[in-house]
Amino acid sequence: VQIAIALYPEFTALDAMGPYQVLVHVPGAEIVLCAEKAGELSDENGLLHLRVDRTFDDVPSPDVIVVPGGTVTRRMAREPGRIVEWIRDVHAGTTYTTSVCTGALLLGAAGLLDGLDATTHWGAYDELASFGARPTEQRVVRQGKIFTAAGVSAGIDLALTLVAEMHGPEVAQAIQLGIEYDPQPPFDSGAPSKAPAEIVELVRGLMAAG
Amino acid sequence: VQIAIALYPEFTALDAMGPYQVLVHVPGAEIVLCAEKAGELSDENGLLHLRVDRTFDDVPSPDVIVVPGGTVTRRMAREPGRIVEWIRDVHAGTTYTTSVCTGALLLGAAGLLDGLDATTHWGAYDELASFGARPTEQRVVRQGKIFTAAGVSAGIDLALTLVAEMHGPEVAQAIQLGIEYDPQPPFDSGAPSKAPAEIVELVRGLMAAG
Repeated sequence: VQIAIALYPEFTALDAMGPYQVLVHVPGAEIVLCAEKAGELSDENGLLHLRVDRTFDDVPSPDVIVVPGGTVTRRMAREPGRIVEWIRDVHAGTTYTTSVCTGALLLGAAGLLDGLDATTHWGAYDELASFGARPTEQRVVRQGKIFTAAGVSAGIDLALTLVAEMHGPEVAQAIQLGIEYDPQPPFDSGAPSKAPAEIVELVRGLMAAG
Repeated sequence: VQIAIALYPEFTALDAMGPYQVLVHVPGAEIVLCAEKAGELSDENGLLHLRVDRTFDDVPSPDVIVVPGGTVTRRMAREPGRIVEWIRDVHAGTTYTTSVCTGALLLGAAGLLDGLDATTHWGAYDELASFGARPTEQRVVRQGKIFTAAGVSAGIDLALTLVAEMHGPEVAQAIQLGIEYDPQPPFDSGAPSKAPAEIVELVRGLMAAG
C-alpha cells in the first residue's frame, strides 16, 4: 500500500506530521512525501525546511493520499495548479482520498466534493461551500472513499480512523497506544462551539488579518 | 523570548512538531530549531529530512528548551554527547526546560531529574527511574521550571500548558482554537491503563523488538 502525503510551499506542519506519525506505523505501508518539485520546501512559518525527493509525476498511482492544509490553499484553490490536477488524476485510482484542515479546499478545487458533506478548518467553511460541499462540524467526515478532517490537529484523528478502516481497530489502537495519544488539553477551547466567545472573536480577527 | 527545539538524528517527528505548531503562535517568540551540527537530519523512520541551520553553540542562552524523544535517546542517555552537555549548560539560564516522550531521558542524563517527579513515554519508565526520577503517569508533570510530557502526542498538551504559564490562559485557548485542538480519537487506547490488555502486550512486544 502506497500512502502519499502531498506537500507544497507554506503547508501547515502539523497537518502533515500528525497523519505521518500515525501512518508510518501502518504494517506494509510505503509512505511517500511528494510535491510539485523535488527539493526543499518550507512550511507557512518559513521555519521548517523539508527535503522532498519525489514529485507528483513520480507518484502516479498512490493507494491513499493525504492533503494537508495551509493558509495558502485559499489562493491555490482559486488558481488551481499541478497539485489540484494531480489530486484529480490520482483520485480515480485511490482507495482513500483524504484531507486535513484547508487541504479540503484543494479536494474541492479538484471537483471531488461537489454535493458531499465535508469538513475543513472552522474558519474556512464558506470557502469549502463554494466548491459545492456541505460544510459539516465533525472531526472527521466520511463520504465513500473521501475522508475530510477538521483543522490542523484533526489529522491525527483522521489517520487513526483511516488505519482502523484499512487494518481493523486493533492496529489503530496499537498505534494510538504507541504514540500515547491520550489527549488531555489543559482547556476545552478547541472548537468555536466550545471556546469562550471572546476567544473565538479574537482568533477570527487574527485569521482575517493574516 | 527565544524557544529552542533541540533536534538530533532519529528524533520522533511528532514529538517536535506538536509543540512547534503551538509555540510558533506565541506572541513575540523566536522559535529556533537547533542540533549538534547544522545541515540535514532525518527522523527515526528515515523518511523526513529537515534542514537545521543553527547548532547548539549558536543557541547558548535560550529562554525555553523543548527536547523531543526518539528510540535512540536510550543510547544517547547512556553515552551522553553534546546535546546532553548543552541541556545541562543552558538549563542554568532557562525560564522553562521541557521534554516530550523519551526526551526526558536526555534531561535525566543531564542530571536535571534526580529526585523529581517526571514522565516520559510509558514504555520508558524504568530508564527514567535510572536517573533518579520518580516516573509519574500524568500527561504533563511540572516540577519548578521543568516540565516533562508523556509519549509523542503529549507534546501538544505540554506546549499549551507552557503557553498558559507564560502568557495566560487566553493566549493558550486562542492557539488551541487556531489549531482546532478538539481531539476526538476514534478509540480510547492511548494509555496502558486504558487500552485492551492484549493491545498493551502487542505494543510492548513490538517496542522490545524494535
